[in-house]
Amino acid sequence: MRITVLAGGIGGARFLRGLKAAVGPADEIIVIGNTGDDIHLFGLKVCPDLDTVMYTLGGGIHEEQGWGRADETWSVKEELAAYGVGPSWFGLGDRDFATHIVRTQMLGAGYPLSAVTEALCDRWQPGVRLLPMTDDRVETHVVIEDPEQDGKRRAVHFQEYWVKLHASVPAQAILPVGAETAKPAPGVVEAIAEADVILLPPSNPVVSIGTILAVPGVREALVAAQAPVVGLSPIVGGAPVRGMADKVLEAVGVETTAAAVALHYGSELLDGWLVHTGDESAVAEVEAAGIACRAVPLLMTDLDASAAMARQALELAEQVRA
Amino acid sequence: MRITVLAGGIGGARFLRGLKAAVGPADEIIVIGNTGDDIHLFGLKVCPDLDTVMYTLGGGIHEEQGWGRADETWSVKEELAAYGVGPSWFGLGDRDFATHIVRTQMLGAGYPLSAVTEALCDRWQPGVRLLPMTDDRVETHVVIEDPEQDGKRRAVHFQEYWVKLHASVPAQAILPVGAETAKPAPGVVEAIAEADVILLPPSNPVVSIGTILAVPGVREALVAAQAPVVGLSPIVGGAPVRGMADKVLEAVGVETTAAAVALHYGSELLDGWLVHTGDESAVAEVEAAGIACRAVPLLMTDLDASAAMARQALELAEQVRA
Repeated sequence: MRITVLAGGIGGARFLRGLKAAVGPADEIIVIGNTGDDIHLFGLKVCPDLDTVMYTLGGGIHEEQGWGRADETWSVKEELAAYGVGPSWFGLGDRDFATHIVRTQMLGAGYPLSAVTEALCDRWQPGVRLLPMTDDRVETHVVIEDPEQDGKRRAVHFQEYWVKLHASVPAQAILPVGAETAKPAPGVVEAIAEADVILLPPSNPVVSIGTILAVPGVREALVAAQAPVVGLSPIVGGAPVRGMADKVLEAVGVETTAAAVALHYGSELLDGWLVHTGDESAVAEVEAAGIACRAVPLLMTDLDASAAMARQALELAEQVRA
Repeated sequence: MRITVLAGGIGGARFLRGLKAAVGPADEIIVIGNTGDDIHLFGLKVCPDLDTVMYTLGGGIHEEQGWGRADETWSVKEELAAYGVGPSWFGLGDRDFATHIVRTQMLGAGYPLSAVTEALCDRWQPGVRLLPMTDDRVETHVVIEDPEQDGKRRAVHFQEYWVKLHASVPAQAILPVGAETAKPAPGVVEAIAEADVILLPPSNPVVSIGTILAVPGVREALVAAQAPVVGLSPIVGGAPVRGMADKVLEAVGVETTAAAVALHYGSELLDGWLVHTGDESAVAEVEAAGIACRAVPLLMTDLDASAAMARQALELAEQVRA
């Protein structure tokens, strides 16, 4: 079976780990990773979501944190601070720096991001084929009214909004800068067209999955896909399971409920939707929109729980296919 | 008093530390640093000699090693090796990497190396004004007959010859690639013209001092300088005190003796020369060439010894001036 998964960072990576445990050795998983949260720091190209997937599936992730490397050291960051070179709010450890150094050097030599990602995965052996959504530069910016500048409207990089400001001010708009002229990376459209099942993990529907869908051709490929498309709600009991998805949902005018997120994706795109066992009330609303919906446990507390979620998603895919 | 010093790496840095201890607070030291051993590694610009001077005078050097940072960690290097990205023979620690990251980012933003060096020194406060010999790219290459390629002649980067091959094969020629079109960095010619004393520390006469002299205008400025030019022999008892200067002296047809190095610099350039107390036999030969010469202890075993050497050099400068 060929399973294609659109993924953001931590939530996507943990779901993928469950999916790998749930499927058989003959099944193939292709991951289309969000690159809208990529950022240039210290002259280096940092791809947080791709790396979180790669490190998590390759056994290098810092488990408690969910991002960055295990057994990390922080000498480079200390030294940059001593030089007075910022920003200091983004956590780049020494081991992580090496990934960005290799990536930046390869990009500088002319390799596209998809080839670089494949080269990095040669080491990590994540057990999935990891494709960036695009080889072109896309950077999600967030429009805010900056409290430090008398409420002046300005667009900040998503990482500045998320990591530095902790989404503490309302997002007025989410702009995937560069998306409108980006092309899907080699293999992305094919992975969607030729999949047997397509899954949307409980990643952020706006700045992770939403950014992937903003690349022209990706949404169209999903709508046209033969395979059932099944998503898992990142919203449980009216709040994000993790992170601050409510902040960016508000910016796109979507309520923070499991049902509202499904309707935001829409029945054109989505064939099935899983909500958390506490959110049974959403099932009827989602099904009324023409999307098959089940309530199952959706908390990725450990690998078994994530694998069970993946099995439920695959089961729902078979039901909507039949 | 304005003292201008031409310096390579470890020997130059240790001598400068002695010089700082020997002079008064009103004296100003300008260092013209060799950049011919600069190398691009992992997409980053590494300036080993400038950094050795900066770290040594700024209190960040690894004392026993003589290069690199104290309290260093090695995570980045480990990770690069895990990615299979080389070279592995050049020792870049995590703290050191931060310097190269800052430098590369500033160069990428358009700052010349001299401005970058000044910015890095803002942190280290080396107590001297450190100027790269040039803002242009100069890289010393060494022609060898490569034993790994059936003795085929090829030019390797100086660092490959020195650090990877440990100068284990004869150097056929030393090529300061790019030097012929390089311009002295801002302040270099002025530092020579306006100095009260000019010193050549016991640095490598070919690949350190020699490379600085290869930048058009530098040798001419030294020859024209009003100030006495006094050098210290890096050769003691017919062998380099440190490193493998004999290998590169051979390539330029100069014997590994204290006298031969003085004559290689020449009386046009050099007004005074210090040899080691064991090398009294050189004094007559050097003086016969019109260069004032004294035999004094020239082993930089500790700060006091280095300071004493600096005092001897300044004393000889006063004698030749009078």
